[in-house]
Amino acid sequence: MDIADCYQKVRRRTEEICSHLHTEDYVVQPVVDVSPPKWHIGHMTWFFETFILKPYFMGYQEYDPNFNYVFNSYYETVGTRVIRTDRGNLSRPTVIEVYSYRKYVDDAMYNFLAQGELSDEVKELMILGFNHEEQHQELLLTDIKYILGNNPLFPAYSQDYVIPKVEIVEDAAFIPINENVYEVGFKGDGFCFDNELNRHKVYLNAFEISPNLVTNAEYLEFINSGGYHDFRHWHAAGWDWVNNNKIEAPMYWHHVDGEWFNYTYHGLQPLTLHGPATHISYYEAYAYASWKGLRLPTEFEWEVAATQFQWGQRWEWTESAYLPYPGFAKAPGAIGEYNGKFMVGQKVLRGASEVTSPNHSRVTYRNFFQPELRWQFTGIRLAK
Amino acid sequence: MDIADCYQKVRRRTEEICSHLHTEDYVVQPVVDVSPPKWHIGHMTWFFETFILKPYFMGYQEYDPNFNYVFNSYYETVGTRVIRTDRGNLSRPTVIEVYSYRKYVDDAMYNFLAQGELSDEVKELMILGFNHEEQHQELLLTDIKYILGNNPLFPAYSQDYVIPKVEIVEDAAFIPINENVYEVGFKGDGFCFDNELNRHKVYLNAFEISPNLVTNAEYLEFINSGGYHDFRHWHAAGWDWVNNNKIEAPMYWHHVDGEWFNYTYHGLQPLTLHGPATHISYYEAYAYASWKGLRLPTEFEWEVAATQFQWGQRWEWTESAYLPYPGFAKAPGAIGEYNGKFMVGQKVLRGASEVTSPNHSRVTYRNFFQPELRWQFTGIRLAK
Amino acid sequence: MDIADCYQKVRRRTEEICSHLHTEDYVVQPVVDVSPPKWHIGHMTWFFETFILKPYFMGYQEYDPNFNYVFNSYYETVGTRVIRTDRGNLSRPTVIEVYSYRKYVDDAMYNFLAQGELSDEVKELMILGFNHEEQHQELLLTDIKYILGNNPLFPAYSQDYVIPKVEIVEDAAFIPINENVYEVGFKGDGFCFDNELNRHKVYLNAFEISPNLVTNAEYLEFINSGGYHDFRHWHAAGWDWVNNNKIEAPMYWHHVDGEWFNYTYHGLQPLTLHGPATHISYYEAYAYASWKGLRLPTEFEWEVAATQFQWGQRWEWTESAYLPYPGFAKAPGAIGEYNGKFMVGQKVLRGASEVTSPNHSRVTYRNFFQPELRWQFTGIRLAK
Amino acid sequence: MDIADCYQKVRRRTEEICSHLHTEDYVVQPVVDVSPPKWHIGHMTWFFETFILKPYFMGYQEYDPNFNYVFNSYYETVGTRVIRTDRGNLSRPTVIEVYSYRKYVDDAMYNFLAQGELSDEVKELMILGFNHEEQHQELLLTDIKYILGNNPLFPAYSQDYVIPKVEIVEDAAFIPINENVYEVGFKGDGFCFDNELNRHKVYLNAFEISPNLVTNAEYLEFINSGGYHDFRHWHAAGWDWVNNNKIEAPMYWHHVDGEWFNYTYHGLQPLTLHGPATHISYYEAYAYASWKGLRLPTEFEWEVAATQFQWGQRWEWTESAYLPYPGFAKAPGAIGEYNGKFMVGQKVLRGASEVTSPNHSRVTYRNFFQPELRWQFTGIRLAK
Repeated sequence: MDIADCYQKVRRRTEEICSHLHTEDYVVQPVVDVSPPKWHIGHMTWFFETFILKPYFMGYQEYDPNFNYVFNSYYETVGTRVIRTDRGNLSRPTVIEVYSYRKYVDDAMYNFLAQGELSDEVKELMILGFNHEEQHQELLLTDIKYILGNNPLFPAYSQDYVIPKVEIVEDAAFIPINENVYEVGFKGDGFCFDNELNRHKVYLNAFEISPNLVTNAEYLEFINSGGYHDFRHWHAAGWDWVNNNKIEAPMYWHHVDGEWFNYTYHGLQPLTLHGPATHISYYEAYAYASWKGLRLPTEFEWEVAATQFQWGQRWEWTESAYLPYPGFAKAPGAIGEYNGKFMVGQKVLRGASEVTSPNHSRVTYRNFFQPELRWQFTGIRLAK
Repeated sequence: MDIADCYQKVRRRTEEICSHLHTEDYVVQPVVDVSPPKWHIGHMTWFFETFILKPYFMGYQEYDPNFNYVFNSYYETVGTRVIRTDRGNLSRPTVIEVYSYRKYVDDAMYNFLAQGELSDEVKELMILGFNHEEQHQELLLTDIKYILGNNPLFPAYSQDYVIPKVEIVEDAAFIPINENVYEVGFKGDGFCFDNELNRHKVYLNAFEISPNLVTNAEYLEFINSGGYHDFRHWHAAGWDWVNNNKIEAPMYWHHVDGEWFNYTYHGLQPLTLHGPATHISYYEAYAYASWKGLRLPTEFEWEVAATQFQWGQRWEWTESAYLPYPGFAKAPGAIGEYNGKFMVGQKVLRGASEVTSPNHSRVTYRNFFQPELRWQFTGIRLAK
Repeated sequence: MDIADCYQKVRRRTEEICSHLHTEDYVVQPVVDVSPPKWHIGHMTWFFETFILKPYFMGYQEYDPNFNYVFNSYYETVGTRVIRTDRGNLSRPTVIEVYSYRKYVDDAMYNFLAQGELSDEVKELMILGFNHEEQHQELLLTDIKYILGNNPLFPAYSQDYVIPKVEIVEDAAFIPINENVYEVGFKGDGFCFDNELNRHKVYLNAFEISPNLVTNAEYLEFINSGGYHDFRHWHAAGWDWVNNNKIEAPMYWHHVDGEWFNYTYHGLQPLTLHGPATHISYYEAYAYASWKGLRLPTEFEWEVAATQFQWGQRWEWTESAYLPYPGFAKAPGAIGEYNGKFMVGQKVLRGASEVTSPNHSRVTYRNFFQPELRWQFTGIRLAK
Repeated sequence: MDIADCYQKVRRRTEEICSHLHTEDYVVQPVVDVSPPKWHIGHMTWFFETFILKPYFMGYQEYDPNFNYVFNSYYETVGTRVIRTDRGNLSRPTVIEVYSYRKYVDDAMYNFLAQGELSDEVKELMILGFNHEEQHQELLLTDIKYILGNNPLFPAYSQDYVIPKVEIVEDAAFIPINENVYEVGFKGDGFCFDNELNRHKVYLNAFEISPNLVTNAEYLEFINSGGYHDFRHWHAAGWDWVNNNKIEAPMYWHHVDGEWFNYTYHGLQPLTLHGPATHISYYEAYAYASWKGLRLPTEFEWEVAATQFQWGQRWEWTESAYLPYPGFAKAPGAIGEYNGKFMVGQKVLRGASEVTSPNHSRVTYRNFFQPELRWQFTGIRLAK
């Protein structure tokens, strides 16, 4: 597929995701980690305008200098950022204006891409832009779920949206892996994020890892046995989190008249017992494993074993902290802020989820979040 | 005018105020004191549904029980309220749905009002409903100003909106009022709020009051002489407020390249020097008066003198705390929560402002806000 | 009594109050409204050093310039103040050092007072200093109660301390007062605070006032009938306070094995049912009155009626906000910060309490606190 | 040395550390991470009472059941804990009472130890108790420094206290270490904490590590070149920390009249330029390394290289997160809460500092703190 087609395909998928929204859904920001969908739309567009059109497309006329301020993300090198918590207070630019901006930039991009062969530098930035947009597509889907799932009316996102069925064969035997020196990290010619490099050797002790994700039925046993009220299973910080926030179950779970429901893209639904436990924080994943007398795998154990089990249904918390690989180097300038600045206080997740953009992830992909966050489609795989 | 015509007139004015909004403007809540316009629209409708249609219109079918939850205000007696800070997180019901609700209730109201003569009880509730809607019309206008005026794009509300010109003759002599026993509080047959009763006698010492509001030019002298940085003019609580919030000027004022601008319904505009200083907190009004060696009038001084000066351009802070009059009695039930429960920690404002609904206020009207609030059209009149 | 004797008497009383403390008790500050006793000791001394010795005693050598910083109060005009919340973090100066400072200043004061006749200006400052020290004596006693009463060991202040018995004849008839113009405010030649001036006329409607304080037995009825859980009796701000702080009873009350105890200067003791309800916030006083179908008196009603009932056992919350009297003028300089800067957001209390210094209060005395505070010996008198 | 002698020696050292304190210094808690010295004294005593005397000394009479509540730490399994922030509000038990408790437990311990041969289980607990007391000795010294160093009078701890001189030869060549599989973790028969086990293999790439700690002179270059104001060197979380707390220099540094001073145990002193930069947070250590174009070592790099440089002057931040070693297992019961529950969100520090108890640390010792903390004697060693 040529690069203009790729561009079109990526951009269209974003618009399809948003096609089920009402204007109002684009605007709100119920918690700081969730961004208003119109901000995502503007921000992905701003990325191509800022990193491709402005530096590389001769004669390009910036759409509106204010938008640089409004749609910038955490990129400190590119102007003053909007304080993140303020995004949900901005009624303007309107959704129509944001789509006009998107159209303007898309038109310019098609003109730019039609000019002929791209330099390697620009090609790399284009591919980074695609991956960036795919990341925001996943965030769009999870942020929309949060916005609608925390509305007292529990509106469905779309009844047409196909929720993948993930049925799990419980009680399968753990997969044993030998003690050895292994190589981890990205290898090959394709795209990867800077945090997947350098490929390097690690020494792993022998371990065993489950071929399955933990199911809702299994997780319910933890709840029913009082797991949320027994400090012995929790980190000190996790225990504070549970108590300060009165956590009693995974996000989106509701106990109504003695039965468990959870909010899905189809609205409030009875809990699927044999589906994977989802919207779990690291703290909960750790406590569950501790209660089971087991543990979470490290990210390297996961990567080494991943060819031997099915993955891609849920982002899987690992025991590993998000840290630089040997030889990690930030790119210079704003692009360099992408990953390295978050390498403290976060945990690595491996795999992908049902809302990850197709072909976006890979076995060496390192996702990362704070240990208390759970609005992503996160789940648990056990090791020992 | 018959009561159905009154109803129509009041309801239409609300819709006209909102006719300049984009859908997105209806949704956001930048600070807790500001409500999203769609909440106001729903809440005013909820008032007529809850206090007229449900108790008095036989066979009336409630539109949606969820809306009771979503559009209730502070009325504790009528179901659980939405926590006030959460209003800005709700994308649903959509603006169209809220207007459908409004239409449904309006249709029912017209049917109800067409049934014939109303009881006195219902007539009183209708008039309370009109006054309630007029209060929210003013809040709509001030909340919209806040929403747009705190957007980095500074969009205008409407260029067609006529901003009244209030030119002030400065340096006019103060009006002297004799020491005496005076009567204050509402008198007559028309509508008043419960907080205006009972009419009662007060003893006033001789005093003098300005025929004018303080102007922007006069207030600038206070700023330029360092008034915001000299604790001697401030209450202890006001001084904390100034410092914690880094206050340097009235709300909506912006100092750009050495000149003062302020945000108006037409967008960012050069400051009109001879207009009344506006969007002033009580703390600032007090500090200004102290700096001038003067003081604010009490609400009774204001009421007694009000026939001798022009009022109605700005809500005028008084030195009086918001307290019950002798013989004040709360109405039973939810209606009784209207005023009495706020009678601690707030200051009385008298007058009316350019965005007060026509004929809504009167000389005995008691408005009230916390001393730090200033998103209303508040101003300063001095006494001595 | 000559002024040096007065000085000695006042200063000794402070030391007697502290004679029951351990060194550790002088140091802590469990909440922001409570100051460490050693701070009180230092601050009262600083008052005489700053306002008498430094300006009026030729050749006086300041004890330590750092102490000005450490023992200053809210007086903004006299150097930078220590942020109030930090007082409880300061282990130095030690208690012994603070008493050395006190001794040094006392010696200088006796020398100064021995020099001969004082000017009227100095005499006034001396009397202000005595009254200031008496106010801090009361704060010392209430702060000590807070420090010990919030310690899990519930240590007694002193078994020798005589707790006055206040037995109340319940169900006595209310005292009727006629409608009239009355005079209120301080009259005479003696000392008063600036907030008691000017004496002025007020118009009062006819009212009735209880000769008794509300008793613990009466207040228990309010608790037992669910008063803390029925929003109808509370101001909106009071209701938030009750819920945010999970208030279920007056301060120092403990429900142990089905019986009520309260912390007193003798340690934890069974509640005296016929004693006056104490350590009540204004919010609670208002809610109790509302539940009874009655109200609190205004400060002027209280002052006019006070000759007809016994007062002085408890500080009695009034319905009045703390505001300036007609003609109120702040003294120039630091002394002027004493009262006026607190005239927003607080309620007036009248009377005196069992820990008020002897002869300190009078019928025109205006005490004032925020509506949620209750570590003072505050109580309830009803009116209608 | 026999175990009773060891006990005496360890306990005496604690008392010697406190011998320079005034009573008031034992009481305060200026920030949540710092505990009042009297709490440390009580807590170390509580450890021996709870884990040795009560379970193993027949007929032992508990000193006071309340003390279990007051001096418990984070051990959730042993009764309700005092909320940590409250420790600084407790004036009772007094310092004398805490020392009486200490004496009572010491006497019982000597009687117990005189009874004859200890079981292996008790021996292990005794050694854990010694190590626990040594850890609190270091905390005592750093907490005392915080208490006195944040007092506006800057009192010295003791002029007799010998502050070790750590002079550093700057610009020494980095030590190269080969790529290889190495073993890390505790080996041998002596005492170690559970977090040092299991000893296991790690694969390290070739790296180089500095033989020196970064000096104050070197760190000043970072400050003077604007390092605290350039976001490019900081983690996102570190940048927020710098800005929210207005950090401009290491803890205890003061810029007075153009010269740098720092608070030491001798009071405020001119900064020693060639001493090691101290009281540095991980965020600052990382930013400094980034500004230098270098990095911090991992804890395994540090451990492998440690025989080739001098260590023990400062706790050295590593790039490693505090995580369990392969095969890590918590001890059952309260002892098991010691380390594992903190294994999220913290960074590993290696080495020891000038206030670490003699012989307490070792090359496999893993200290850990949150990345923003800096009241310990922390420093920086660079790697590449």
